[in-house]
Amino acid sequence: MNTGELTDLGQQLRVDSVRAAAAAGSGHPTSSMSAADLMAVLLARHLRYDFDRPAHPGNDRFVLSKGHASPLLYSAYKAAGAIDDEELLTFRKLGSRLEGHPTPQRLPWVETATGSLGQGLPVGVGIALAGKRLDRTGYRTWVLCGDSELAEGSVWEAAEHAGYEHLDNLTVIVDVNRLGQRGPTRHGHDLDAYARRFQAFDWHTIEVDGHDVDAIDRAYGEAASTKGQPTAILARTLKGKGVEAVQDREGLHGKPLPEADEAISELGGRRDIRVRVQEPPAARMLHSVHTGDFELPTWDKGEEVATRNAFGQALAALGTGRGDIVALDGEVGDSTRAEFFAKEHPDRYFECYIAEQQLVASAVGLAARGWVPYAATFAAFLTRAYDFVRMASISGSGINLVGSHAGVAIGQDGPSQMGLEDLAMMRAVHGSTVLSPCDANQTARLVGAMAGLEGVRYLRTSRGESPVIYDPDEEFPVGGSKVLRSSDRDRLTLVAAGVTVHEALAAADALEGEGIQARVIDLYSVKPVDRAALRRAAEETGCLVTVEDHHPEGGIGDAVLEAFADGRPVPRLVRLAVRSMPGSASPDEQLHAAGIDAESIAAAGRLLVEEAVVP
Amino acid sequence: MNTGELTDLGQQLRVDSVRAAAAAGSGHPTSSMSAADLMAVLLARHLRYDFDRPAHPGNDRFVLSKGHASPLLYSAYKAAGAIDDEELLTFRKLGSRLEGHPTPQRLPWVETATGSLGQGLPVGVGIALAGKRLDRTGYRTWVLCGDSELAEGSVWEAAEHAGYEHLDNLTVIVDVNRLGQRGPTRHGHDLDAYARRFQAFDWHTIEVDGHDVDAIDRAYGEAASTKGQPTAILARTLKGKGVEAVQDREGLHGKPLPEADEAISELGGRRDIRVRVQEPPAARMLHSVHTGDFELPTWDKGEEVATRNAFGQALAALGTGRGDIVALDGEVGDSTRAEFFAKEHPDRYFECYIAEQQLVASAVGLAARGWVPYAATFAAFLTRAYDFVRMASISGSGINLVGSHAGVAIGQDGPSQMGLEDLAMMRAVHGSTVLSPCDANQTARLVGAMAGLEGVRYLRTSRGESPVIYDPDEEFPVGGSKVLRSSDRDRLTLVAAGVTVHEALAAADALEGEGIQARVIDLYSVKPVDRAALRRAAEETGCLVTVEDHHPEGGIGDAVLEAFADGRPVPRLVRLAVRSMPGSASPDEQLHAAGIDAESIAAAGRLLVEEAVVP
Repeated sequence: MNTGELTDLGQQLRVDSVRAAAAAGSGHPTSSMSAADLMAVLLARHLRYDFDRPAHPGNDRFVLSKGHASPLLYSAYKAAGAIDDEELLTFRKLGSRLEGHPTPQRLPWVETATGSLGQGLPVGVGIALAGKRLDRTGYRTWVLCGDSELAEGSVWEAAEHAGYEHLDNLTVIVDVNRLGQRGPTRHGHDLDAYARRFQAFDWHTIEVDGHDVDAIDRAYGEAASTKGQPTAILARTLKGKGVEAVQDREGLHGKPLPEADEAISELGGRRDIRVRVQEPPAARMLHSVHTGDFELPTWDKGEEVATRNAFGQALAALGTGRGDIVALDGEVGDSTRAEFFAKEHPDRYFECYIAEQQLVASAVGLAARGWVPYAATFAAFLTRAYDFVRMASISGSGINLVGSHAGVAIGQDGPSQMGLEDLAMMRAVHGSTVLSPCDANQTARLVGAMAGLEGVRYLRTSRGESPVIYDPDEEFPVGGSKVLRSSDRDRLTLVAAGVTVHEALAAADALEGEGIQARVIDLYSVKPVDRAALRRAAEETGCLVTVEDHHPEGGIGDAVLEAFADGRPVPRLVRLAVRSMPGSASPDEQLHAAGIDAESIAAAGRLLVEEAVVP
Repeated sequence: MNTGELTDLGQQLRVDSVRAAAAAGSGHPTSSMSAADLMAVLLARHLRYDFDRPAHPGNDRFVLSKGHASPLLYSAYKAAGAIDDEELLTFRKLGSRLEGHPTPQRLPWVETATGSLGQGLPVGVGIALAGKRLDRTGYRTWVLCGDSELAEGSVWEAAEHAGYEHLDNLTVIVDVNRLGQRGPTRHGHDLDAYARRFQAFDWHTIEVDGHDVDAIDRAYGEAASTKGQPTAILARTLKGKGVEAVQDREGLHGKPLPEADEAISELGGRRDIRVRVQEPPAARMLHSVHTGDFELPTWDKGEEVATRNAFGQALAALGTGRGDIVALDGEVGDSTRAEFFAKEHPDRYFECYIAEQQLVASAVGLAARGWVPYAATFAAFLTRAYDFVRMASISGSGINLVGSHAGVAIGQDGPSQMGLEDLAMMRAVHGSTVLSPCDANQTARLVGAMAGLEGVRYLRTSRGESPVIYDPDEEFPVGGSKVLRSSDRDRLTLVAAGVTVHEALAAADALEGEGIQARVIDLYSVKPVDRAALRRAAEETGCLVTVEDHHPEGGIGDAVLEAFADGRPVPRLVRLAVRSMPGSASPDEQLHAAGIDAESIAAAGRLLVEEAVVP
């Protein structure tokens, strides 16, 4: 395509964006119009992509970080022949694949769900890392960002990571249209301000008029040929470009154009340019090839092992067996024990430093390329990346997250380091799996099982040692539980997970000494929860005590009640959880102060079987 | 103090850090030793602070962002005479004020809880904003950071904010000791790398030998006299400085020194230097002065008003009445309606752009200075700041968070914009209050009530209009609920909040048409929850249907069951919630597809009263 044709294509993308938003009665046409020329040149001249084979290993990867500019993306799909005009006009309607913000669950050409700003570049970094260090099929990763979203710290975590890793296969195109949602951005059209920031993080930068298709073309070429550095293209554009009534004006974000027909005329009317997108080079994936024998580690009953150690050893073993397993950590691999994997498989280990948003985003990017990531940090610090976890679930991304140092049982370090909200946070994520093992053999099995699940998987591990209570050959299906004690005289059931399992067992001993038989359930699968076992326990023992090293909301207690949320009779129960703000103290002192140690459990159980209300 | 005395003081801080960690058997002495000279010079020469009057309005503000270096902080408190040696040696023990990571809940000189890295500077920016724009008593804000934590994006959100706001009352001191927890940082001792980054964000920078007390002294002086820009002092230091066995060595993070007595000798032995910290200048607070009459807005029954609008109007009115109310927004004030406050009180409005971590951190900083902040963005995007919310609760910070665009009811924009985890996330925060109003009058009253509460307060608002159902003079105590329908023939209770209240009312109408009387409870106070009303409803009607525009985990359904978690009989119940991943559709279509509209509620209620299990 020559200059005139590219310009025409840009206008077509604008017209189609205006039409899609008009048909929907909502959407973000002005944010699409600013980036239309940037998209036109990319599509017609630089992107190498086979729309018929989105899984082609040689395909370039495109991420629309400013996901609200979805009309532009869908208009580009139409220009490439991937969708037709009829489908374009289903935009934002019930059942349409063309959602307000694009998601890979609906469209095969979308790499990651966007719409929460500042996530496209971090995920793009993950994809580019896969390309550079693992896939090596030569694809480029292109990320189209807005200028507003550069205020997000996650963008600078990504910039730091990409600069440090010399990701010259990554290009970010910033559509600097100077207007955010409610008004001007901090830096307006000051391209230098953005360039200085990217340069400081060791990026190559190019400043360009984002409506000059030849200049854009040269910039893309320069980006593609720059070695040793990622490139940021800072493009000066006008929001609503091409339609006088909306161009460069405030107060028009996220609104269809007031006079769509006039606007379309002003843009030169409908066109039907069809772009022949460049084919990707022949390439084949390597990572499915390498798979060998391996055995998950096992421990003898009675050994004292921290579940974080079992995680690290199991992950290292899994990595030996499966070449598609990768691991990431946020500069605490010596604590989470992800370092065990790093030592055995340094080529598949990604040090993310103290940047938990980039940690999770890298995992999402790697998963988008078919790798099976395990990303670890302290459970408490995964709260830093909650928006990324939420968006991962919208992407349908298959990622494993591992949070160590759960609960007050960590001891002296105090509340800032204690994961006390992690179960609540992870359970509330759509389609998630939440696992909380109590011994080393169980942990290892669950680490292995996680690899084969869908969606966001979360494993909670503990800092301190605990006794191995399961045989090495015991199995732990996801969605199951283990009845550790039971008799036909059980008068109540203690339900626990992780460290509190050991406390519950001790409490059952104490109660037995008083003539009260207690069933004990190890609820290692917090989500999905073992409804059948809980219902059976309720029917057979009448009442339950749940005990968790977590705040009372959203954890084990709530998970147990899911089994009784369909109208069936609900058992009487008491929930023990961390209800006060912990300070520094030893692990045993912490469990006691929180009222989740054996003594507290036994006391609650005693009151419950006496049909007293527990204070 | 002269050079020799300052050097001696630095050694004393090292010795006391080593002693405290040795007494505790845990802690981070090497991270304390690197910054000891930086702290010594600050304490003896530059900090203006009255330890007897921590609330003195003229006091400088010091934030230890690298909270794990708490031994250094406590050693400095000892040197200043604020604590004695006996207390110093209680470090990390049960009941001690001297926790593993410092918190203001225990120590009056701590501005904000730290220990989750990358939070000190953002909160420091909030404090400096208060100093610059509101308090104007001339205090300086000093933040001591580690180098590792500069990988956190939140640091660069803060850097951007401070640079843009010209916060020349803010100094960050970076202890560049080149070693993180598990090994070297990305940039080692390359001070220029950090300087380039801060400069790009429009900071003044100074590079210094962090063990040269005279050079440090000059740097602090230069920082204090720099106008128009914040200053970053990049100090080259050695982790474990002064003790050969640990100095500049890997693998010694977070561990007491192996031979404490020898180390203390090597550091010159115990000293007992007492520092006379400079007095703050006389100053008085201004913001308690201005308070006038105001009336919260009201609406007539039957009007159609979005609760987000009611929030905006109520907040603006509250701001008129109370001079200590401030508002912040993450560049979506036109959507959250925080802009209503901005228009009336621009001097007390803080635009945080798209940087939700800084949004919440600014609120925490402002609250630390006695202001009453309301920070608003989309409910979905508050997930971005969850770690800051968690740490705010550890601080005991009194902040109001407002999340708009809750749930699938927002319609076409799709799941990335829908707050569907917000209730779970906020309920799990220790000591939080969670409010979910359904009409404008209720919203306004709750906005007013929030100002007087403790801890983290969260208000959930809706995008679309809903009918006003309460009289303007109705009261809504926090912890209460409203019974909207009841009779002595009620066979079930529908429990809802926010948009689902209106659906529940319509469902009750439909059921009544079939001869089934249903009680309807508006559970506007999700936490604390109205246990008494729920228990009464359970006793009188036998069974409950909960319905929420939220994922099934951690929201209304779980909150309701808290009322029955003490061993008392639990009613049969069914929980309706958003169990599938929404796409784009109209609000009504969304509610229907999620199974939380009137029709779905009526269907569930019908089955429940028939004692059937609801599929």
